[in-house]
Amino acid sequence: MTAATDSWAAQIRQGDVRAISRALTAIENGDVLARPLLQQLFSATGRAWKIGMTGAAGTGKSTLANCLAARYRALQKSVGIIAVDPSSPFTGGAILGDRIRMQDHATDGGVFIRSMASRGAWGGLAQSAADAALLLDAAGKEIILLETVGVGQDEVEVVRVADCTLVVVTPGAGDEVQSLKAGLMEIANIFVLNKSDYPEADALEQQLQSVLQLAPARDGRNPQIVRTVATEKKGVDQLVQAVEEFRVSRSTAGKLSREVAYWKHWLLRTAQQRVVDDLLIGEEKTLQRAAETIAVRTKDPYVAADELFESIHIPRKVNPQ
Amino acid sequence: MTAATDSWAAQIRQGDVRAISRALTAIENGDVLARPLLQQLFSATGRAWKIGMTGAAGTGKSTLANCLAARYRALQKSVGIIAVDPSSPFTGGAILGDRIRMQDHATDGGVFIRSMASRGAWGGLAQSAADAALLLDAAGKEIILLETVGVGQDEVEVVRVADCTLVVVTPGAGDEVQSLKAGLMEIANIFVLNKSDYPEADALEQQLQSVLQLAPARDGRNPQIVRTVATEKKGVDQLVQAVEEFRVSRSTAGKLSREVAYWKHWLLRTAQQRVVDDLLIGEEKTLQRAAETIAVRTKDPYVAADELFESIHIPRKVNPQ
Repeated sequence: MTAATDSWAAQIRQGDVRAISRALTAIENGDVLARPLLQQLFSATGRAWKIGMTGAAGTGKSTLANCLAARYRALQKSVGIIAVDPSSPFTGGAILGDRIRMQDHATDGGVFIRSMASRGAWGGLAQSAADAALLLDAAGKEIILLETVGVGQDEVEVVRVADCTLVVVTPGAGDEVQSLKAGLMEIANIFVLNKSDYPEADALEQQLQSVLQLAPARDGRNPQIVRTVATEKKGVDQLVQAVEEFRVSRSTAGKLSREVAYWKHWLLRTAQQRVVDDLLIGEEKTLQRAAETIAVRTKDPYVAADELFESIHIPRKVNPQ
Repeated sequence: MTAATDSWAAQIRQGDVRAISRALTAIENGDVLARPLLQQLFSATGRAWKIGMTGAAGTGKSTLANCLAARYRALQKSVGIIAVDPSSPFTGGAILGDRIRMQDHATDGGVFIRSMASRGAWGGLAQSAADAALLLDAAGKEIILLETVGVGQDEVEVVRVADCTLVVVTPGAGDEVQSLKAGLMEIANIFVLNKSDYPEADALEQQLQSVLQLAPARDGRNPQIVRTVATEKKGVDQLVQAVEEFRVSRSTAGKLSREVAYWKHWLLRTAQQRVVDDLLIGEEKTLQRAAETIAVRTKDPYVAADELFESIHIPRKVNPQ
């Protein structure tokens, strides 16, 4: 550890906004100081209650995050928001929109807000979001909202770090429930039926309930459905209440085993990331040559892979032939 | 190589349906014979034209795949279809539906059809689909259709192996274009506007066109938009025509560099898969212990990861501290 991260870590633990901001930038940029800093802060983590929030574009997640943050502030809780957009700069509009909408809290020292965007197809965003959550946890934020746009694998990864995951659905977005990805159904602890003043809301709730009845109950309980109209701040108290009930049900049994399962997952993702980093950065030429020999059919891909991985010490797959 | 895979490979190259079926089962199950078989067949691959097809649930992809297969059969081309569903058994209905719809071709020896479904969060499905495509290629299928349900990262991975990717959109499915994932926009070579007899079809086409105008043109051309009504077999000839034009434009320039880029990607995915397999299968206890030391905060995750990866020879990340 360096003296630089020592005092930096101390400032973060005191909740210093500039120190936290600098640390989040370091995490996002893969700065070399991010790791020793997080190592130093790690023992101070594990106290925040992390709420994940995901759903398709246009379901009103940001407005809802705003409402939740305001409600928790009214309950004297300190709040951090991490808004993650796994899509590329091509659709950068959403993030900008979020940044603007979230300015409501910008002058309130109790709410720390940060947007993070994707950097490339080879991921790392879910890891960065997880690191950002650790950082806000160490900084003493009691409630951390992780908000992400979309319903794919990337988004599921982002909210995996959460203690409680809200999946936001709205009526009138086509065959909403049918197209809900199975992965999302499995991570939802609470369904938020936002825009519930729309005429099709009742039908959607019924649909959702019948899908949930088919799903195996986890921990003996099926996800609650909470109806909200975020633009009018309706249903927000009920949502906070549902989150609280969920928190109480989770506070005793299985907490450690859930933590262990999360870190197993984290270790696997980290292993994948390291291997890719090593191939793309450290061994780019070797990788290029291997791909060329396959493309011209000089070698088959399996032999080329074995030779390549041998050279960077990835375990060679046992070939029983 | 074994005598068993020798004669098996020979049967596959002759297009023997039972031999191909057995091989696809071996690929799906991760059977030990799959690899030597594919190695033996690899030099016979690279001749098929692979068409990827993706889009949200309910856009009519299966019906469209059916129409395309029939059209290519009429043109005396042999056709293979691989229908991939990355969702879990929880939403197994879709696959069953596809299987039934695709029976149209079941008695036609020129169309080989196979459904593949996901097996677990740690992927491998895109790799299996790519192996299945190699197999059908070696079996002499001239046209291979890879169809996948959804618009997330998994689906993008599945169609990555294709020479030409069709993204299917339909009017009336909410804010369709806005919610099209950036990844999909980037892989689309042709947009298929299916159900184009719906009233909102013109508006969707205009929306799509304005989004495409913002996108950087690749290889000097923007994706074509083709309107179809698959249930009435309308627009299918135009779609085949568009695919053919795309094929001609691609037949000369950049073919090798695209192949190299694909195999680089394949090598990276394979490296990730091996590391995960090794940790989950070979080193499950070590992984579990490492996760436990993190969960109880005895070690920070970065040190625990270094120690774990050291033990299985994953390159240790250089820590500049």
